[in-house]
Amino acid sequence: MSKNITVKNLAYLAGFLDGDGSIYVRLKPNPTYRFGFQISPCIAFFQAKKEKENFARVCALAGAGYMRERKDGIMEYVINKKDEIVDFLSQVKPFLILKRRQAELMIKIFEMKENVRDQKDFEKLAGMIDKFRELNYSKKRKRHNLTP
Amino acid sequence: MSKNITVKNLAYLAGFLDGDGSIYVRLKPNPTYRFGFQISPCIAFFQAKKEKENFARVCALAGAGYMRERKDGIMEYVINKKDEIVDFLSQVKPFLILKRRQAELMIKIFEMKENVRDQKDFEKLAGMIDKFRELNYSKKRKRHNLTP
Repeated sequence: MSKNITVKNLAYLAGFLDGDGSIYVRLKPNPTYRFGFQISPCIAFFQAKKEKENFARVCALAGAGYMRERKDGIMEYVINKKDEIVDFLSQVKPFLILKRRQAELMIKIFEMKENVRDQKDFEKLAGMIDKFRELNYSKKRKRHNLTP
Repeated sequence: MSKNITVKNLAYLAGFLDGDGSIYVRLKPNPTYRFGFQISPCIAFFQAKKEKENFARVCALAGAGYMRERKDGIMEYVINKKDEIVDFLSQVKPFLILKRRQAELMIKIFEMKENVRDQKDFEKLAGMIDKFRELNYSKKRKRHNLTP
């Protein structure tokens, strides 16, 4: 867990996340889950493979997550465990400028998720997750339809 | 001039530059210059137009340079005056992880430029400028031919 990251490193990571990173949640259809969807949160950084070594140094500052090489040769650093995400975002948030709303939304979604009791609660949560598309400015916006 | 940026803001700007920014020098053919080329240095940050307001806040931290909107709708923040570049890079360099070599190379090129006395010196300088291509991993590498 990324406890006690120094102010200097938190500010650096916030700049890196604002410049190059991504904060998002996906709803993945999964019939083994109670409401038919798995909630898949993610913080990701990207870098060309040639920078692998230095990129690993950047990622080590976060003290959580893992690095993987994509098929297209891009290195991807991913934090996708709930506790690690909440811990990381809580610390980095005060330093974020461009992605602070995404960080706040992510934390709020985790809070809401704890309190989901029925289908209606889950639909509210799905609506919150859709807001990531607006914040992240994807051109292919699609709303989730939870009642097929 | 970007004097006395706080450690927090320097670390943030270093992260942003490492993640999203660009440090480079171009040799522009220009017959009005003594050796036929103008040396055009640049530090640049990029962001989608929708983030214009927050992006301006990021750029304001540097206390130098200017923002412009490109024809493709991307906002570009550019520091291209020698004194501002040297001042900015000198402060940010200790916090850089991915682009520290580019920062060092840029500062070295300015030092060399001061001491150019003849064509041979200028060719050495041009060779240093070519190194940016290697550091920045452009796929279209071309070496400058100074004797047409």
